[in-house]
Parts: sequence; C-alpha cells; structure tokens
Amino acid sequence: MSDDAPAPVWLHELTWPAVESYLESEPTPTVLVPVGSTEQHGPHLPLGVDGFQARSLAEEIAVATDVLTAPPLWYGDADHHLGFPGTISLSTDTVVSVLSDIYDSLANHGFVNIITVNGHRIANLTAIRIAMDRANRTHPDASFAAIDPLRIGIDAHRRLRDGDSEDGMHGGEFETSFMLANHPELVREAEFTREVTETEPYQSDDLVSLTDSVIRPHGRRTPEDGSLGHVGDPTNASAEKGDELWAELVANAADFIDSLR
Amino acid sequence: MSDDAPAPVWLHELTWPAVESYLESEPTPTVLVPVGSTEQHGPHLPLGVDGFQARSLAEEIAVATDVLTAPPLWYGDADHHLGFPGTISLSTDTVVSVLSDIYDSLANHGFVNIITVNGHRIANLTAIRIAMDRANRTHPDASFAAIDPLRIGIDAHRRLRDGDSEDGMHGGEFETSFMLANHPELVREAEFTREVTETEPYQSDDLVSLTDSVIRPHGRRTPEDGSLGHVGDPTNASAEKGDELWAELVANAADFIDSLR
Amino acid sequence: MSDDAPAPVWLHELTWPAVESYLESEPTPTVLVPVGSTEQHGPHLPLGVDGFQARSLAEEIAVATDVLTAPPLWYGDADHHLGFPGTISLSTDTVVSVLSDIYDSLANHGFVNIITVNGHRIANLTAIRIAMDRANRTHPDASFAAIDPLRIGIDAHRRLRDGDSEDGMHGGEFETSFMLANHPELVREAEFTREVTETEPYQSDDLVSLTDSVIRPHGRRTPEDGSLGHVGDPTNASAEKGDELWAELVANAADFIDSLR
Amino acid sequence: MSDDAPAPVWLHELTWPAVESYLESEPTPTVLVPVGSTEQHGPHLPLGVDGFQARSLAEEIAVATDVLTAPPLWYGDADHHLGFPGTISLSTDTVVSVLSDIYDSLANHGFVNIITVNGHRIANLTAIRIAMDRANRTHPDASFAAIDPLRIGIDAHRRLRDGDSEDGMHGGEFETSFMLANHPELVREAEFTREVTETEPYQSDDLVSLTDSVIRPHGRRTPEDGSLGHVGDPTNASAEKGDELWAELVANAADFIDSLR
Amino acid sequence: MSDDAPAPVWLHELTWPAVESYLESEPTPTVLVPVGSTEQHGPHLPLGVDGFQARSLAEEIAVATDVLTAPPLWYGDADHHLGFPGTISLSTDTVVSVLSDIYDSLANHGFVNIITVNGHRIANLTAIRIAMDRANRTHPDASFAAIDPLRIGIDAHRRLRDGDSEDGMHGGEFETSFMLANHPELVREAEFTREVTETEPYQSDDLVSLTDSVIRPHGRRTPEDGSLGHVGDPTNASAEKGDELWAELVANAADFIDSLR
Amino acid sequence: MSDDAPAPVWLHELTWPAVESYLESEPTPTVLVPVGSTEQHGPHLPLGVDGFQARSLAEEIAVATDVLTAPPLWYGDADHHLGFPGTISLSTDTVVSVLSDIYDSLANHGFVNIITVNGHRIANLTAIRIAMDRANRTHPDASFAAIDPLRIGIDAHRRLRDGDSEDGMHGGEFETSFMLANHPELVREAEFTREVTETEPYQSDDLVSLTDSVIRPHGRRTPEDGSLGHVGDPTNASAEKGDELWAELVANAADFIDSLR
Repeated sequence: MSDDAPAPVWLHELTWPAVESYLESEPTPTVLVPVGSTEQHGPHLPLGVDGFQARSLAEEIAVATDVLTAPPLWYGDADHHLGFPGTISLSTDTVVSVLSDIYDSLANHGFVNIITVNGHRIANLTAIRIAMDRANRTHPDASFAAIDPLRIGIDAHRRLRDGDSEDGMHGGEFETSFMLANHPELVREAEFTREVTETEPYQSDDLVSLTDSVIRPHGRRTPEDGSLGHVGDPTNASAEKGDELWAELVANAADFIDSLR
Repeated sequence: MSDDAPAPVWLHELTWPAVESYLESEPTPTVLVPVGSTEQHGPHLPLGVDGFQARSLAEEIAVATDVLTAPPLWYGDADHHLGFPGTISLSTDTVVSVLSDIYDSLANHGFVNIITVNGHRIANLTAIRIAMDRANRTHPDASFAAIDPLRIGIDAHRRLRDGDSEDGMHGGEFETSFMLANHPELVREAEFTREVTETEPYQSDDLVSLTDSVIRPHGRRTPEDGSLGHVGDPTNASAEKGDELWAELVANAADFIDSLR
Repeated sequence: MSDDAPAPVWLHELTWPAVESYLESEPTPTVLVPVGSTEQHGPHLPLGVDGFQARSLAEEIAVATDVLTAPPLWYGDADHHLGFPGTISLSTDTVVSVLSDIYDSLANHGFVNIITVNGHRIANLTAIRIAMDRANRTHPDASFAAIDPLRIGIDAHRRLRDGDSEDGMHGGEFETSFMLANHPELVREAEFTREVTETEPYQSDDLVSLTDSVIRPHGRRTPEDGSLGHVGDPTNASAEKGDELWAELVANAADFIDSLR
Repeated sequence: MSDDAPAPVWLHELTWPAVESYLESEPTPTVLVPVGSTEQHGPHLPLGVDGFQARSLAEEIAVATDVLTAPPLWYGDADHHLGFPGTISLSTDTVVSVLSDIYDSLANHGFVNIITVNGHRIANLTAIRIAMDRANRTHPDASFAAIDPLRIGIDAHRRLRDGDSEDGMHGGEFETSFMLANHPELVREAEFTREVTETEPYQSDDLVSLTDSVIRPHGRRTPEDGSLGHVGDPTNASAEKGDELWAELVANAADFIDSLR
Repeated sequence: MSDDAPAPVWLHELTWPAVESYLESEPTPTVLVPVGSTEQHGPHLPLGVDGFQARSLAEEIAVATDVLTAPPLWYGDADHHLGFPGTISLSTDTVVSVLSDIYDSLANHGFVNIITVNGHRIANLTAIRIAMDRANRTHPDASFAAIDPLRIGIDAHRRLRDGDSEDGMHGGEFETSFMLANHPELVREAEFTREVTETEPYQSDDLVSLTDSVIRPHGRRTPEDGSLGHVGDPTNASAEKGDELWAELVANAADFIDSLR
Repeated sequence: MSDDAPAPVWLHELTWPAVESYLESEPTPTVLVPVGSTEQHGPHLPLGVDGFQARSLAEEIAVATDVLTAPPLWYGDADHHLGFPGTISLSTDTVVSVLSDIYDSLANHGFVNIITVNGHRIANLTAIRIAMDRANRTHPDASFAAIDPLRIGIDAHRRLRDGDSEDGMHGGEFETSFMLANHPELVREAEFTREVTETEPYQSDDLVSLTDSVIRPHGRRTPEDGSLGHVGDPTNASAEKGDELWAELVANAADFIDSLR
C-alpha cells in the first residue's frame, strides 16, 4: 500500500520498456489515475485522507485486475476548505488542466481504458467530468470513466452505515474507518467528535438516499466559526467497517473493469 | 408564458427605475436566471425544448413568489448532441463565462438571492456549479442556488412515471408531456417512437433511483448510427402529466424560495 | 413577433429532421444569429430594447428571404451601462466565445451563409468582428457577415431624423419609434425626456455623418451623476417612423441576402 | 524621424530620472503609444509602412505638443495578409495583451493621457478598443484615446484624393504619398500598379463617405490568386500630397491633445 | 523515505490543528514543495526517478531543518520525453497553474518561506520561475526560492563525476547513483548502457562547466530513432556516490534555509 | 545601426516580392527576431538599452551572415523594474504570445532557422524558452534557437571584465560600454555610480562563474528604497570595451549560424 511496495502496477516504478511491453501484449490496455486532495479532515484525521484513499483504491484495483496505475495526485479542488490551516487547493480549472494533460499523454501511448479513481468524494467530479468530456472528443478510440467511492459504493454505504445519511462524505464514519484500517498511526482517536450540520429545506447533501434538493455552491467554513471541519460521527468508525467497505468498492470496480474487456 | 406577456417579472420588460425600485423595496431581492439549450430532442420535439422549459419554469416561479427573472438563455452545453442537424452548443467554458458575467452583474446591483433555473436537465449542471462556486467567492454576501427539474422533482418523476427509469432525461415521457401541455403546436405526435438504450454494468444514467455506477463522459450519438436522438417513450406522455409535474416543480421551487426569506 | 408564433423560421421551433431537410434542399443554406443586450435604455424604455430589435429584425428578414434564424441572444457587451440597475453585461471575451461556439455549430451543420443580426447598435460589433474573423479562418467555405441597424440604415436614419445627429444610438428618437411600433405596452411616454451630451472636440459619436474624431473607450455613466441613461430625444419618436425605418432595414437586409445567392 | 534622432520625446532615449522629472513637472502628463504592423503593402512599398507611419506620426505629434512617446510597436493584427511572404501577424488577443500591459505600466507611473497612435489604419482598432475599455475600468483616473490617420483625417483624405473612395486604406494613393515624402529610398516606383477590388452590394469598404453596408470578416488574399496585395492607385501618389496630409493629421492630433489640457 | 513513514514533516500526515500549531509557534514558518516528473529514464531506471528524488530530498531537508513539506507532485513538464511509452507530461502552463495554486494556498496560511524542491533537473525550472515571480507579486511578505540538485550541487557534481560533462542531467551517472542508494530494487543493472549525444557547436547542454552556447528548445527523441532515452553512462554509478551527492545537496539546502532564519 | 539605414536585412524595409525571392533562392532561409525591453538602466543610461542592443546585434549578425531580421521588439518581461518611472513591462505570458505569433508567421512562410536575439539579458529567456518549445512542436521542420549576449559571450565577459562577477547583467560595465560605443549621446557620464548588491548565501546572480545557488524570483526594487536601479560599476566602461565585446558576440553568433548551413 506504499509507493515503494514491490507491486508492479505503478507506472513510476516501471521502466519505459516495461510499459511498452504491457501496451503491446494487452488487448485492452487499461490504466488508473488516482486523484486525491490535501485538505482538512477534522481534528482527528490527517490532511491527506483523500490521497490515501485514492492511492490505496487504485493500487488494490490494479492488483485485482492486472492493470497499471499512474502515480497518485495528492492535490484536488478544495477551495471550500481553505479556511483551515494546511489545506492546499487547486482551482477547478487547474484540476481540469492536470487531468487533461495526463489523459492526453496516456491515450497517445495507446491506453484504451483510462479510469480516474477519485479519493476526494464528489468534490473533484466537476473537474473530472469536464476533463473526461474533453478527452473523449480528442481521443474517440479511448474510453474514459471515473470511480468515486460514494457513487460506486451506494449500497455498501447504506448497508454499513450506523450514523446519519450525510455521513458518507467528509471525515465522518466511513473515511475514519478507512484510516483506522489502513493508517491507524495517523488517526487521533482522542479527538473523535460528532459534527452535524443543520439542513435547510431542499438543501440536503444526502447523496445516498437522494431527496428533492437544489444545487448550491460548496459551503465555506472556518475554524473561526467554531467549525471542526468534518461532517458526521467518527465514533461510529471501525477498522472492520473500513475493510468491509473497501472490499466491496474494489470488487465493484473490478467488476466494472472486467465488463470493459 | 411568452416573452411578450404583460407579466411584470421579466427584467427585459422593465425600465431601470422599475428595477431600482424593486431592489430598494425588497428585503431580500431575488432574481432567477433561466438557462436552456438548443439541441435535438428526437423527431417529435423542437430543438428549443430546454429553453421553453427554463423560460416557463422561471416565469411561473417568479409570478408565484413575486421575484424577478433575467431573460432566458436559449443556449447551453450540448456537445454530445452536435451530431444532429440544428443543435447549437456552447462549450462548458463558455457557459461558465456567460453565467459568471450574469451573476456578477446581478450581485453588483444588490440582488441577494440569485437562482439559476436549468431547463437542460443535468447537462448544464457542471458549468452552473463552477460559475456558482466562483460567484460565491467573489460575492460572499449573495446566495446562489440552482433548480433542476429532475433534482427538485425526484418524487414527482417517480410518482408520475409510466415508462423506464431513464425516462426523465431527454425527449421522453416527461419532456414530451411538458410540450403537449404548453406548446402542443410544436409537437409532432405522428413521430412518437420508443427509444431505449441498452445499459452496460455500472453505466446506468438512472438518476432517479440512483444505483451503483461509474461516471462517464457524455455519450455522443448521430443519425448515422440510426439513432433518433431522444431517450425513453413519448407515447407515455400527456398534457395532464405535464401540468401535474409542472405544478409540483413550481410548488417545490416556491417552497425553497420562501425558505430563503 | 413572438418566440411562440407559428412562423417556421426559428430553429428552436423546428425538429432536427426539419432542419436536416432545409439543409439538404437549399443550395445556399442561410441562418441568422440575433444578438441583443439587456441594458438600461432610459426611464421610458425597458432593458430589453436591443434584444427586441434583434429578435424582430431576424424574424422579419428570415420570413422575407425564406431562411432560418437561431434563437435570440438577449445578452451583450454592455459594461458601460452597468451603473444602472438591471443592466446585465457579458465581457467582450464572453460575447466572442458565445458567438464563436454558435458559428462553429452552424458551420459544421453545413450552413453556408451565417449572418449576425445585431440589435445592440455598434457596441457588440467589436466582439462580432473578432468572432467572425476567427470563424472565417476555421470555416473557409462558409461566409460570415453582420447586419447592424445603424450601418445598414444610414440613409434611412438621415432621411427620417428630426433630432440631433447622435440620435440614432441609444434610447432616442429611433429606438423609441421601434418600441412604439412593436411593443407600445412597454413604453412609458410620461417619462420622455430630451438628453443631450456636450461633445468635446474630436469626440463626437456621430456615426451617421462621420466627422474627424478620435476613438475613445465607452463612456461610463451612472444615475448618481444625474444621468437618465439614454441619448437623444424620444419626443421625436412615433410608431410610423418606427415602421418606416424597419421596412427599409428589412428591405436592405433582404437585398443583401439575395446578393449572396 | 529616426529612433536615434536627438529629439527628447522617445521614452527609450530617456533615463528614468528624466521621465520622473517630466511626470512631476507636468500638470497632465501625456504619452503616445505608436502601433504599426509588419505586412505586405504591394510590390512597391516595404512591409513596414504602418510602423513607419505610426513612428513618424507619434514623433511629430510629441514634438508639436511637448509630450512623450513610448517606443514603436512594429507588429499588429494582420492575419488577412499572411498569404504574402514576410507578413508577420499578432492575433487580436495578443495585440490586446501587449497594449493592456503597456497601458497598465504607463498609467501606474502617473501618465494621465495615454493616446495610441495607430499606423495600421482601421485594422488594429478592434484590439485597441478592447484594450482601452479594459484599461479604462482599471484606471478610472487616466484617460485613453486612439488616433487613426483615416478617422482623424477624413476631411483631408476627401480633399486631397484623386483616386477611388477606397484609396485611403492599404498601399494606395495616401500611404504611397507618405512613403515618398519620408522614406523615398524604400519605394519602388517601377512597380506602381492600380489595383481595384470589385465591390458586391452592401460590401463597400468606403469608410470615407460611409454608405449602407454590412460588416464582414477581413478578406484574405494571396499571391496565388494573382493579387498584388495593395488596394488603390499608387500612381496618384506624390511626396507633396504626403506632406500635406501629414501636416493636417499632426495639426488635428495636436488640436485634440490641447483640448485635454 | 516513504509517504507512510512516521516522520512528522509531511503535510498530508498531519491534522489541521497540528499545522496551525506549527504556524503559530514558528517565527519563520517554512514549507517545501517537492516537484518531480513521470518520464522515461532509459531502460535501466523507472519512470518516477524525478519524483523519487524530489520526495527524498524534501523529506531529508525537512527533517534536517525542522520544517514541513507539502505532498510530492509526481508530474512535471516532460513534453520532450512523450515519445517514450509511459511518460506523462503536464504542459508548462499547467505546471505554472498547479504551483501557483499551491503557493497561494500556503502563503495565505502564513508560511513565510516557500521553497520548491525540483527533482526534474532544470526542465521544470521555466514553470517554477514563472510561478514564483507571480506569487512574489501577490504575496510580497512571503519569500520564494527553488532548489535544483544540479544548481545547488554544482561543486558536488564536478568533484564526484567520472563521466562526461553532460552526465549530470538525465538517467546517467548521478541519477542512477541516487536510485542505487535509495531504491535499488527498481534499478535494472543488466540494462546499463552508455548513451552519448554528439554536440554541435554552441549547442552543449553542459550546465556544469558553462561554455558559450545558444539556447534551444528541448530536443525530442523517440525509441523509433534508436534512442534509449537517457544521457550519460550509468556504469559510472554507485550507491556510495549517490549517498555522498545526497549528503552534500541536503547540507547545502539546510545551509540555505538556515540563512533565511 | 538605425532602422532607416539602407542595409537590406530588415524585413520592414523590404517588399513582399523581395522576401519571396530570398525564401526561394536560399537553401536554408534564416531570420533573426530581436527582442529588447523598455526598462530603467540606472541614472546614466536610457530606458531602451536592451532594445538598442537587440537591434544592433541583430543587424550586425544579419549583415555578417547574409540573413534577414524581423523588426525589433522594444518591449520585454520587466515587471521587476516597474518601480522605476518609465519602465514598461509585458507579462511573461504576453511575451510568449508575441513570440509565438511571430514564430508561427515566419515558419509558415518557409524560414528554416528562426533565431531570437535577446537584448534583455537572461530576463526574457523564460518567455523565449516557452515560445520556442511551443513552436518546435508546431513546426517540426523549422529550427529554433536564442542568442543571449551573456550566454554566447561568457568567455568574452570573463576576459574583458574589470569589475565584479555580477557586472555582466544590468546597466553596469558591459551595457554601459555598449552604449558608449554605439549611442554616446544618450549616456550621462556625470551620473556614473558604482552600485553593489550584498549577496546572501546561495543567492548569487553570478551567471558567469556559476556557483552553487538557489533560484529566486526577480528582485523588485524601487527608488523609494534608495536604489539607483543598475547593478555594477559603469566607471569601468569604455567604448573600446564595448566594441571588443560586440565583435566577439557577432563572431560567435555568425559561427553558430554557419554551423546550421
């Protein structure tokens, strides 16, 4: 699960003749593009949670399906978290540019399936959609898709959830479970606190059960408002829940990738 | 329901002193921004369906809630329909620029709630989100939101639907019902045909019931592929269904706007 | 004169097979692109005057010459009017992007003559020129042109004018005459006031008789300066003058379009 | 008339303390910005005609009115001449960027009147207008204007003209007269040839008498079409006519600049 | 030396309150920004060499000087290597955007010294310079600098070198030594081959001894030309040389950072 | 050495048929692009020093090697000098756009070697590199290079220098020598003052002897800080030194150009 691990799936650990040989031997060469974000995740989780998720998900999917993965992008579209020390945000336009350049490079080498793995739930999707639409026009022979833990794991989130319906999003039950399962030394259990946002009519972020709602800009909070930064309840988290969720996400993604062959 | 109608809600039918007077007398001045698209909607509906929906929805909401509305934008993000004669598409970047300029103008005049009304279901949302996020940063004292028939009428679509789950989207049961109710002279009933798309695993567009899925670029079809252009079954449409759906959309939107006061 | 009228010239009222049939049967398929602006026009005229003119001119020319017209763009380059409540301005760059995208879509469908109809006298021309030059390079087989009431009606303005030489421009004798002839219910005759701008040497805006002058940026006025917003004398306006001017503009435009066949 | 001449008006021949002293001693510090183009001017004139005109006009106006001038920009918006060897064109966007950066630098130093001198008749005006509008918003305390030989010398062109009405534009009677008066060693009299463009209805470029016309993109010709590149009749040119025209242009410009004090 | 290591210097391994506490307790808060590239490095080294160098250098400097470091950027400006399978290149503009956004985020949080650590010798410097110049204008109170192994280790390269003068650049003696010292399992010693580029007059890339030369665009090679991709002689490499070079680079960088306090 | 001189090397002094004839008769048509800057050079030198150097260098090289040269660009990337009255700066992006457009025009005409001559030592190189890389991709059959007095005259600077190692850069010994040799009437000897910058560790700008250093943004000084603007010691300057340096630069450049034939 580390960049240094011997798993031969990471592009940055392979020589160019090794990549050439994969491209020539595979009928449908496939590559993953893991994208995270460096942003606050409450007082109990490190800033890199989304990058850890993207990296781990990409590596496990690549190993399970025998495909390659590009190096992780630790930076994403996180303007709404800039009020918290340490958050680093790329503008939506910058994320689009980065992904467009990556997609162009990979499609020109002959990769046929180029699949983005988004660790920054929902928030990076705007940029990913634009970059995929653009690449789709430039490279009609390549196929683009994006995997998001929340969108490919709706059933898993529903089934495993002990907390509120918003709890799939940011620093709550599920992301804390992932970190407990994979990077426990970076989790501060002493800081576990339940944070709930009061919801106005038609303004729910509940993407799991999908009720009538309007679309709004990202909310911007700061520590000055007394906000701790995360949403939901980390005390509902456990390493087991993290493992179970992850197994299902990887299985769903592998199932999808198999359907492309 | 026409641009020429005497209803005093359209900005382009008011003088500047009339707008000034509204801004000065209203505690929370509110304005709608209707956005459509000029794109193919199958052989039975005219290219302007999305603009007709945006214009009609904005006018009815404005009348119901006593707010103003900017003139309709007939053009949207429709690259995936360019294979069909007559479709006119603005790039995502262009739609973002247009909306950003409109939002800036309105916020600078002192409008406090600026609410986009999207007639081009889902497809314009990428651009709208970026423009709202940007305006939200520039104008922290204004409040932005977007109303989409599918997102604010999930329950209504579920309840009224006779066809497939994809049928809320493009030229099917619901858009045809709207046109029968409001512009019957522009509907060609003789051309009503059921069009169904076979769905690959994890690739459903079913936004109403929300199953596990990956995010993909917009599909691009053309008449050369034998495609008629729409999705779903117009024979399930009726003027009554159109009226009923519309009444619920307007009521939900009015409910939301009231919650902002 | 309404978007809802049964005239079969508006693209947004036609199905894609109807547009395909026009493109296949016409030797030189021609389409108009009406562009207006939502901006103050003094206390006696509504903000949409330029859009009403563009829409009306496009519809009448299309009917007279049997060509199609794209839906009206109600927004234009109006930064210099932003001091007045209700004005909505797109930047010059945004107008260029919108027109470029529209021209590209239409040229790719096979339209051979793409003719912009500008209701926002002179002020949109900068953006229109850039977009036409760009499209001209991308689509060498298509032909682009722009019709402006002032440039195609110089003789008519000279002959019909009772007021000053600046009076062809903004909210004065001629635009008020158009509104009296076509949308009298939106005109406030009680507010008719003569507004004259003192002109410095070499700084006349008299585009009808063309005297020696320097080019300056658009002047920016506001109600705070005591400005009413329009230029010229609405008391010289009449519905008859509006009808006569319009007939000549439509005849000249039709004459020009016939010369392209 | 050379960059090396001792006239103390050129910014690039002055030290920064000399400029500082001008800015501190002048009540309304004024600077000119000469802009030309490197483009074909027929077989009888060199590619730099527009730059020579801009440089000469700026220098003479600066000397006559005791103001400063920025160094000449030899490059302009000349895409329509790229078919001819040696033409170098900046895109409209690039010219806008160059002028915007120059205007910003000068306005920030405290110049109050910033006056562009355009040697590339009409063709650079689109870019100049956009850059002036932009600078006008950023620097409300500075005043911007542009001088074009054709627009500030309409009467002079009418009075002195022996050829056709189009002859004020490009490489004809007037530009050849300027070159005979100022750079006779660069003129090839043996190549003087009358070139006339047949004009379609409503498509005249006659900016001097201004008849009804539509606006079109710049025409693009090439030597392959048998075109020589210029418009009009150089045999009507003379050094005297060049001197007389120039004297009037400089006088008009000086008159305008005096009106700003 | 891994992202997962317990060293408390990586931003993505810290919570936001931990970063806040560093910012509040440090007189001159300092942060590193490691930038690499995913590009071919010959048949004996993996694509990620530049990212490994940037990550390792940043971590060691941060530990040595008690400062923080942002997560590694694995992607850089590598267009000239795109001919080789697996290379992923961001355009110069994209790298500028990414760095600008990162610098803005960090400067706004109150970091006073923001120091880029470039693993992609020389090639990223163009983008880094532009981004630093831009940030320098926006954040006059922050201080920006960039560390490049070649520029901060000129003496070290000269002293340790056994091969040619070009050998400091790409996949040769020095980069191979780094990889042998730090990631030996990713080095393919069986593929060690000497690659030498014939140099034309004035076209040397010898940045270590600096002879008279012109500046040229990046050369673009491909496997089709028989190129192996790297420059120099990996057989001169050793883990000891890698350790020695690295120790000196870290010492020099620490020396520089101490001078800022 | 003037733009008006009869030397037939300047594009703006040639007709298009003359350029066509050069392109058709030369096996490897070559053109120079001189780029300067309008920026403060201390109290003893005029703002145009870099433009004078670029123009003079281009003219002498063109005459020596029988190639053509584009007109001089007097403006460059000089943001760091904007604190001094009279400095005019183009942004890096603007310089890239100008050069890209010039390179495109020239390459499309068939010039095979396009060589930029930079009078603004080092500072314009960032923009020149980006523009050359871009042009190199678009025009693979053309060859691009840039000549900088400091980079092509490292030996000459070392040999002739009497002052400090920083003295090759800006307004010191060498630039003053050039001006004494070529434009003595624009030099103010009474203002000759030695200006030395104290250098922090690793922050030397000594590009001639190249010591270990970090890369920093351009320093921004102003007269308010008591700075005179230049670096180095003009009292070490002489016309003879200027002539000797210039002869060697021209000889080196001619040598390089001959190597391309």
